[in-house]
Amino acid sequence: MTTPIGIGIVGYGNLGRGVEKAIALSPDLQLVGVFSRRDPLAVKTAGAPAYALADLDAHADEIDVLILCGGSRSDLPVQSPELAARFTIVDSFDTHPKVPEHFAAVDAAATAAGTVAIISTGWDPGLFSINRLYGEAILPQGSTYTFWGRGLSQGHSDALRRIEGVVGAVQYTLPAESAIERVRSGEQPELTTREQHTRECFVVLAEGADAEAVRNEIVTMPDYFEPYDTTVNFISAEELARDHQGMPHGGFVIRSGESSPGVNHTIEYKLALDSNPEFTSSVLVAYARAAARLAAQGDTGAKTPFDIAPGLLSPKSAEQLRAEIL
Amino acid sequence: MTTPIGIGIVGYGNLGRGVEKAIALSPDLQLVGVFSRRDPLAVKTAGAPAYALADLDAHADEIDVLILCGGSRSDLPVQSPELAARFTIVDSFDTHPKVPEHFAAVDAAATAAGTVAIISTGWDPGLFSINRLYGEAILPQGSTYTFWGRGLSQGHSDALRRIEGVVGAVQYTLPAESAIERVRSGEQPELTTREQHTRECFVVLAEGADAEAVRNEIVTMPDYFEPYDTTVNFISAEELARDHQGMPHGGFVIRSGESSPGVNHTIEYKLALDSNPEFTSSVLVAYARAAARLAAQGDTGAKTPFDIAPGLLSPKSAEQLRAEIL
Repeated sequence: MTTPIGIGIVGYGNLGRGVEKAIALSPDLQLVGVFSRRDPLAVKTAGAPAYALADLDAHADEIDVLILCGGSRSDLPVQSPELAARFTIVDSFDTHPKVPEHFAAVDAAATAAGTVAIISTGWDPGLFSINRLYGEAILPQGSTYTFWGRGLSQGHSDALRRIEGVVGAVQYTLPAESAIERVRSGEQPELTTREQHTRECFVVLAEGADAEAVRNEIVTMPDYFEPYDTTVNFISAEELARDHQGMPHGGFVIRSGESSPGVNHTIEYKLALDSNPEFTSSVLVAYARAAARLAAQGDTGAKTPFDIAPGLLSPKSAEQLRAEIL
Repeated sequence: MTTPIGIGIVGYGNLGRGVEKAIALSPDLQLVGVFSRRDPLAVKTAGAPAYALADLDAHADEIDVLILCGGSRSDLPVQSPELAARFTIVDSFDTHPKVPEHFAAVDAAATAAGTVAIISTGWDPGLFSINRLYGEAILPQGSTYTFWGRGLSQGHSDALRRIEGVVGAVQYTLPAESAIERVRSGEQPELTTREQHTRECFVVLAEGADAEAVRNEIVTMPDYFEPYDTTVNFISAEELARDHQGMPHGGFVIRSGESSPGVNHTIEYKLALDSNPEFTSSVLVAYARAAARLAAQGDTGAKTPFDIAPGLLSPKSAEQLRAEIL
């Protein structure tokens, strides 16, 4: 066994906690500590030492890769370039339209510093993106479909909670079964995101609230619910607490195409995740291993999952992989 | 548009014909010709010029990559090292236990010659292998399952045809639905290949043959059928010719694992292919593009799909991929 790869976690929300768990399952990785903007004494980890983010440089010798666990809206656009100027990093930046801008900022920092930065790991962007790519490269004549769900939607849950008479709520996005079946059949239908998904709401009413009025306000809410087939279920506060605390997610990428007239093929990639953040963390950790290896080879600059050979993600050697799972 | 990548096809059976079709769907690739051990005048292509294999060197200037379309049993073990000593190549070598040996022979030739050789592309080995790798790298605590089918099995079809009283037959291997459901549930059952698959036979009887005797001989045939749940259907010669001339195949790779106690995730990759050889050809062609790029970058030696970054398979630039499908 070679020296373990030293990992620092930046940010300790759901993702950071997931990364701590995932590192515990990887004997070739060693967790140096959690680095937080909060007072380290207030950060309750599952065992990792907690440090102030400002003390990062004091641990530079132990850290091979920083895993950035902040949000894509305000944390990563600042932290990824800033930290890539001092460390090899991975992030799960997931604001699709801003990827080119984020890549450019991180690439400039990493190239100047001679570090490696793998951005937008996770599952979408990430594993789903890779499957979209393989699908269209192998079957250039065809259509790609991405379905999300069954998964908790934070934004839509918030919209429900703002309705008068609602004291608690969650919203799940579901892939529409009828749309999936049409895609699987090889028909290559034209579908909008709206036609591909349905919405399921679980709502706790305030004492005395009018259920039908609330239901009507939900299903007619423009953009959020009106365009979708939306189901509203009223439940008790106890049921909400008992059955809806998880953060499940998942979905499908389906490529349907033909290699010659009338000869159809379907490639389907499906994730069913008990915990969106824990799975995303597991992906981040595998890409941290790849980042450490690229940095050790002298590679530099920003990368995405498209640039990372699959073998770099595995703790096994190339020989072992060829013999065991090729 | 840059200069197209020049491709030579070596061998013109089902795979070679599929490669010719796949290249026609890729404007960045240009087919130089089909190179065959047969008399070129006897090789009826869909339009590509046919040449004698012995004349390969006369076309060396036009050829960036050779796609080897021979069989894994006797063609590729000889041709891949021999041709890698003169050209950048891709093959679909699929004898799993002999991969290390094949890799070593091809690597020695390619490294000495300064060429690139990507071996064992296709779907298993190939895309299925990549999914086994991603699955275990991301969810190190879990189990991986590979199911094949519904697909035509050549060896089992041949075994049926050797039975007295049988004048024609095909055999399809099917994944056992009950086993798939257990795996999808996250139960992580221990399953043998036999428990994972069932067998379906379509048999044309000779005039006067005893159907029950034939059925009994099939379902009790050791190794081939006895250990499996086997269904035998008797059909007419017309039905065999009409309904069973295709070479469908496919299957699943499922990784089921947990990121922390009780938090389960399932990753499922599924192929449903109208034509096994045409799809394999489509994969070979995408890897030929990657091989040409690696060779242009000065890379050398043998590679497998584990060593190839996904982005190298796509005709799109890295910028385009990040903006469009990440």
